[in-house]
Amino acid sequence: MSNHKNISKKAGLPPGSLIYIGKQKQGKTKITLTDYDKHQFTIEECQHISDTFSYKNKHSVSWINIDGLHDTDMIFQIGNHFELHPLVLEDILNTKHRPKVEDFGHYLFLSVKMLSIHPTKKSITIEQVSFVLGKHWLITFQERQGDTFDIIRKRLADNTGKMRQLKEDYLFYRLLDTIVDHYFFIIEYFSEATEKLEEKILSYPDDKTLYDIQLLKKNLVQFRKSVVPLRELITSVQKDAPHFITENTNRYLHDVYEHIIHINESIEIQKDLLSSLMDLYMTGISNKMNQVMQVLTIIATIFIPLSFIAGVYGMNFDHMPELHWKYGYHAVWILMLGILITMLVYFKRKKWL
Amino acid sequence: MSNHKNISKKAGLPPGSLIYIGKQKQGKTKITLTDYDKHQFTIEECQHISDTFSYKNKHSVSWINIDGLHDTDMIFQIGNHFELHPLVLEDILNTKHRPKVEDFGHYLFLSVKMLSIHPTKKSITIEQVSFVLGKHWLITFQERQGDTFDIIRKRLADNTGKMRQLKEDYLFYRLLDTIVDHYFFIIEYFSEATEKLEEKILSYPDDKTLYDIQLLKKNLVQFRKSVVPLRELITSVQKDAPHFITENTNRYLHDVYEHIIHINESIEIQKDLLSSLMDLYMTGISNKMNQVMQVLTIIATIFIPLSFIAGVYGMNFDHMPELHWKYGYHAVWILMLGILITMLVYFKRKKWL
Amino acid sequence: MSNHKNISKKAGLPPGSLIYIGKQKQGKTKITLTDYDKHQFTIEECQHISDTFSYKNKHSVSWINIDGLHDTDMIFQIGNHFELHPLVLEDILNTKHRPKVEDFGHYLFLSVKMLSIHPTKKSITIEQVSFVLGKHWLITFQERQGDTFDIIRKRLADNTGKMRQLKEDYLFYRLLDTIVDHYFFIIEYFSEATEKLEEKILSYPDDKTLYDIQLLKKNLVQFRKSVVPLRELITSVQKDAPHFITENTNRYLHDVYEHIIHINESIEIQKDLLSSLMDLYMTGISNKMNQVMQVLTIIATIFIPLSFIAGVYGMNFDHMPELHWKYGYHAVWILMLGILITMLVYFKRKKWL
Amino acid sequence: MSNHKNISKKAGLPPGSLIYIGKQKQGKTKITLTDYDKHQFTIEECQHISDTFSYKNKHSVSWINIDGLHDTDMIFQIGNHFELHPLVLEDILNTKHRPKVEDFGHYLFLSVKMLSIHPTKKSITIEQVSFVLGKHWLITFQERQGDTFDIIRKRLADNTGKMRQLKEDYLFYRLLDTIVDHYFFIIEYFSEATEKLEEKILSYPDDKTLYDIQLLKKNLVQFRKSVVPLRELITSVQKDAPHFITENTNRYLHDVYEHIIHINESIEIQKDLLSSLMDLYMTGISNKMNQVMQVLTIIATIFIPLSFIAGVYGMNFDHMPELHWKYGYHAVWILMLGILITMLVYFKRKKWL
Amino acid sequence: MSNHKNISKKAGLPPGSLIYIGKQKQGKTKITLTDYDKHQFTIEECQHISDTFSYKNKHSVSWINIDGLHDTDMIFQIGNHFELHPLVLEDILNTKHRPKVEDFGHYLFLSVKMLSIHPTKKSITIEQVSFVLGKHWLITFQERQGDTFDIIRKRLADNTGKMRQLKEDYLFYRLLDTIVDHYFFIIEYFSEATEKLEEKILSYPDDKTLYDIQLLKKNLVQFRKSVVPLRELITSVQKDAPHFITENTNRYLHDVYEHIIHINESIEIQKDLLSSLMDLYMTGISNKMNQVMQVLTIIATIFIPLSFIAGVYGMNFDHMPELHWKYGYHAVWILMLGILITMLVYFKRKKWL
Repeated sequence: MSNHKNISKKAGLPPGSLIYIGKQKQGKTKITLTDYDKHQFTIEECQHISDTFSYKNKHSVSWINIDGLHDTDMIFQIGNHFELHPLVLEDILNTKHRPKVEDFGHYLFLSVKMLSIHPTKKSITIEQVSFVLGKHWLITFQERQGDTFDIIRKRLADNTGKMRQLKEDYLFYRLLDTIVDHYFFIIEYFSEATEKLEEKILSYPDDKTLYDIQLLKKNLVQFRKSVVPLRELITSVQKDAPHFITENTNRYLHDVYEHIIHINESIEIQKDLLSSLMDLYMTGISNKMNQVMQVLTIIATIFIPLSFIAGVYGMNFDHMPELHWKYGYHAVWILMLGILITMLVYFKRKKWL
Repeated sequence: MSNHKNISKKAGLPPGSLIYIGKQKQGKTKITLTDYDKHQFTIEECQHISDTFSYKNKHSVSWINIDGLHDTDMIFQIGNHFELHPLVLEDILNTKHRPKVEDFGHYLFLSVKMLSIHPTKKSITIEQVSFVLGKHWLITFQERQGDTFDIIRKRLADNTGKMRQLKEDYLFYRLLDTIVDHYFFIIEYFSEATEKLEEKILSYPDDKTLYDIQLLKKNLVQFRKSVVPLRELITSVQKDAPHFITENTNRYLHDVYEHIIHINESIEIQKDLLSSLMDLYMTGISNKMNQVMQVLTIIATIFIPLSFIAGVYGMNFDHMPELHWKYGYHAVWILMLGILITMLVYFKRKKWL
Repeated sequence: MSNHKNISKKAGLPPGSLIYIGKQKQGKTKITLTDYDKHQFTIEECQHISDTFSYKNKHSVSWINIDGLHDTDMIFQIGNHFELHPLVLEDILNTKHRPKVEDFGHYLFLSVKMLSIHPTKKSITIEQVSFVLGKHWLITFQERQGDTFDIIRKRLADNTGKMRQLKEDYLFYRLLDTIVDHYFFIIEYFSEATEKLEEKILSYPDDKTLYDIQLLKKNLVQFRKSVVPLRELITSVQKDAPHFITENTNRYLHDVYEHIIHINESIEIQKDLLSSLMDLYMTGISNKMNQVMQVLTIIATIFIPLSFIAGVYGMNFDHMPELHWKYGYHAVWILMLGILITMLVYFKRKKWL
Repeated sequence: MSNHKNISKKAGLPPGSLIYIGKQKQGKTKITLTDYDKHQFTIEECQHISDTFSYKNKHSVSWINIDGLHDTDMIFQIGNHFELHPLVLEDILNTKHRPKVEDFGHYLFLSVKMLSIHPTKKSITIEQVSFVLGKHWLITFQERQGDTFDIIRKRLADNTGKMRQLKEDYLFYRLLDTIVDHYFFIIEYFSEATEKLEEKILSYPDDKTLYDIQLLKKNLVQFRKSVVPLRELITSVQKDAPHFITENTNRYLHDVYEHIIHINESIEIQKDLLSSLMDLYMTGISNKMNQVMQVLTIIATIFIPLSFIAGVYGMNFDHMPELHWKYGYHAVWILMLGILITMLVYFKRKKWL
Repeated sequence: MSNHKNISKKAGLPPGSLIYIGKQKQGKTKITLTDYDKHQFTIEECQHISDTFSYKNKHSVSWINIDGLHDTDMIFQIGNHFELHPLVLEDILNTKHRPKVEDFGHYLFLSVKMLSIHPTKKSITIEQVSFVLGKHWLITFQERQGDTFDIIRKRLADNTGKMRQLKEDYLFYRLLDTIVDHYFFIIEYFSEATEKLEEKILSYPDDKTLYDIQLLKKNLVQFRKSVVPLRELITSVQKDAPHFITENTNRYLHDVYEHIIHINESIEIQKDLLSSLMDLYMTGISNKMNQVMQVLTIIATIFIPLSFIAGVYGMNFDHMPELHWKYGYHAVWILMLGILITMLVYFKRKKWL
């Protein structure tokens, strides 16, 4: 929720000011260069960004992956060498903005959100991944080192499937597809969390439950914000950029598009379910109060009249004939039992017992 | 709700990976081949999928129906012989995705959901049915063996109506129409269930009712998810695929389209009704609590003052002249009866009695 | 609400199966033939449908009105003679579907709902009216005999206005206009019913009120379902069918279109009002409970402390000096009156009295 | 709310039937003729409508204003002379319909609602104003005599501004603008009324408040209904009628359009505010009940245990040693004070005091 | 909320009447002239508006900034010299209207809202900023003197970045961007305020909280009203005005556009959060009342039966054998302790303790 704090730091600065918005990190940025075509495959970790520059004009597919964005100087050098617009560099670093696509003629820029669930704490982390897709090269920027793309590198290394035969646009699709596939995990997480909450509300709701619903709702809002713009984005990639994406890859992108729609629908359903959980919770509380009230009413309604009778015969008048009857005391007990039984029958009929 | 668990299994795999998402089933897949034209009609159950391959280029209408999707190897062979795109095969097997249509030039792919209600348990099962419509042939894929399409086969065998005169596009329409017609049963089920719940809420709501509303709501969401995309789908079939669908069949498809709109409207109405049931339920609970409160108030308001009076004359002061009057005790009873009657009149006027 | 039961009867049947969905009725179907031009006017009740067939090619305006749809054989004969598409015949008989328009080249098909309020029971009945508009002829189908169109026949007979000078498209407009004008009665009914309910809720809401709101809501949903599609329908008639509708009649149709919009807006307003009635009702119940609680609280808060004091001086301790004071009893009364007055002042200040 | 009663009177009548829907009024209709160009300015009250007929073909701008619509005969004469379509005459008289625009080739018809607040009673009255804009002439119809347009007549008479230099389209714009400007008064009224209600709800809500919210809501619905169609109307005037409206006046009309949007937005905001007032009211009631409950709980929770103790020592057992202790009575008082203090501390900690 | 009061002052006045709507201010209007090109940079505070007139036709970029709008005479002179349309002057002064853009051929008019938060009082002030963008000149109008644009002047003076190389359209973009960037501060303020309120509601809600939610809601509505129209506005600037905005600046404007979308999304999220805060608050109150009820029920349910027993043995019957048993008193205490323990166990099981 405190995302905006960092963005507002930049107010008034000229566009293209290279300031990394996000948790400032130290240590070295990891640069991984993967280069392949039908015949060969190389992967290496570069020490300096300039090591990758020669790959710009090679005819093989060159994929430069940058992990870590705090080295704004390096980003600037990449921008210089690959002739990127200042606004692109700004968008790569400004990791709090919404997903975005823009066609710059000789390259295509796309930024999306990668979401992952912390395995134990069950909290969601959002990371921005930016793609710059040129002719024969693809640069990807990640905020953190992670293993999401390792499966792709392994497939390239093993040369399984037809990936090495295809171009950088197919690699771009595969990376994007991997990110979108991860969204299904998030949906799953929400789906399970909602079901658990529902069970809890239907059995025994407490104050913590309310807090949990609210938290889940806020997380879902974050998720939604990351996913909703993708629909329009992929349509835009498909329509406006035929010179980056081949006909063949386009069909695959359409598949990603349908996944996005599926995920969007699931998010809307989760949102509705959460709203109805809130209703369920409020009804549960009302039911509980009703139960409390019934217990109070039953006890009070039975004993208040009985106490009154006892009170009557505790009065100290000189002339109270009942007090002197031999079976007065027993008669009073019979009267009180009669009232008790009448009450119980009444409550039984009202289904309060 | 746990649909996504299976989909997320696939994250990171290349597109077109043939993994059957759904309950893994054993036993043989049933292959039914129906072949007909104006002059002849054959129906046979094939032992092996390759028995059907020769029908691909025949000029009669050949309908291959596959019941059961766990034999991914067979699906792969069909894909190979009929030159289907890897993504189509993936979509046939991935039975958790939303309904979908895609035109691949020499064939049209469409997947929809078939819904049925379990006759005794009154639960809804959702099954995916995929159609691949080519020139002179139609392949349909179902998850389970079922009798939904038997009525069509019978009509073909009996040669009633003009079905045998017409082409594979009309068969395709008839199968689709049969599936859509079944949705009316589901609407009926919801309509009846909602009415029963409403009656129950207006007579005597309990905790179980809340659970039932919530369950019905979730089932309706599932139904909606299956039906809503069809509107767009059929429009898409009509517009983009004139070479698969004749002018004549198109008019019939328009009829299916209007059924879909009718069903969609009915779903929205059911959704509204379920929401207002929730409101009714909450109001019912409030009414009940109100009733409980009134009983408590009437009893307490009458007897607390009376008990106070009895308490006063139970005090042990030496000098309490009333205690020694001859008719003191009777006077107190008259006072108490007076208060009682006043109270009852007051409650009557307040319409609490 | 049980509309769908009848529709689902048809699942699996071929399109164009002539089954009358609706309450099966016996007795003769009434066929009224009206034929007119500038110079003449004939009206007659036909014994057999074939009596009307010769009018198909006459240049005067021929209006065939069919009251009662259970004679499917007759419908089939009409379809045959006037060359109607099987789906049109199906739509005429399937009276539970939504309003619909379709242009078949040599005729235009339109089905709408006619609503009427039962004068005493104040319930709404919905009846389907279908129009088939050809060149020089118009066929109308009604479910029941009714007097709605009598006013038009009278105007034709009296030759008031310019109706006899104009063609079948103007007749078609006048009949449609009559149906739409009747919707204003329905709006009026809802408007009055809502106002009555509001008054009742603001004066004294009871359980019956809740039931009435729910009933009105469901009736409004039915009304809405019948009217909403008309907007699109009339636009469609105006746009797609210039060869059925003259420029002059088109302007009148536009007037009908604006009536439909007016009615739609009124329905939305009624819907909002009914929702806010539900809110009012719930608030009314809360207010009532509040009032009950206040009475209870006032009584209990005043007498519980007083009873305590009485209880204290009812204790049997040997050494209780107050009991033996000469004015002890009077002092206690003064104390209790003091507490009573303090309480009353407090409640006055809290505005509970 | 009872608007529809009058409209439904007309059901079945032919279009163009001249029936004045509205409160039937007696007395003479006021006809004001204003005629001007750069050089001259005349204003006169005509005795008979035929006095204005000669102005139809004059090249100066002729503005005929009719106050009062019950003289349907006169309306018919105007229609005849100025060649107005029967539907236009019907729309002028049918003052309950929604705002409307229609281009009839040689004239433009526009009807809008003029709203005013009764200065003392603070109720809103809605009046229909119809414009018929021809070449060199403008006819306006009002339901009642009013002073709304006097400011325009005064400006024309004084010849301030450039109004006399411009044509009838500018006069039309100025009159329309005057009506729209009055809507701001209505918004102001709602805004103030809402604020007053909010203050009342936050200080001390009562039953009257609920009624006031409901009334304001219904008035806002009426206002909304009058204003919403104007957006589309003015766009339609601008687009379809370039031969009535000059380029210059069009820019001014755009200004009116933006006022309408502003007013629409304000209405939506008022609607939201009224909804949240309802929520506030319900929360206020809950808060109040909570407060009532707390008082009851505090009193009951303190005195019920104390009364119990007093009750124990009021028992008449022969062997109750405490009764005979010298300081028994004092000990009981100390015990009771101890309980009292404990309770008070508990309530303090719970923040109930 | 009382915005409309000022607007309605103008009802009936001719368009272009120069009346400053806003808080009438005294003192001198501040005129700042900034003139620059690649080679030079001048900034000066002008005494009289006519000092700036010579800059209209200079080829360098001339930026005239006016702080304070109460000197309508001066506005009139600017309008005269720069040939502005009367409606533009009216819009500059009418600071209560919604943001607006209009292309007048030789200049472009745009008005937006600048929002700022008072550093200590934490209230939002809204100020209108109007831009008139011509060829080689830009005039900006502000309601108050402020330091928002100082950062731009400093950058121009320091000649950092490429600003001095570019034209007036880039300056226009930079000023607009600065205003939009400030919106992020407002979002941040709302985000923080909402979070604080949420914490308070989850810990201890009181009456003040309700008032705070309502206030925040109303402020958000104001904010939304200022921002929502910008989306359409910037699209309109980009599309319709290619002769004012170069291709290069257009890309930057697209960036502003995306910021606006981001802010709009954030506003919607805040709106949702505020609604759910209201729900949380109501649930919190229900929970609290539930707690109060439970305490009351526990105390009453335990002590009412005990008091009854004490009352029974306080009766004065002559024949009550229990009273004369030696251990009667102890037996009663044991009975009462038994009841107490039973009750406590029951409440424990019900989880009320």
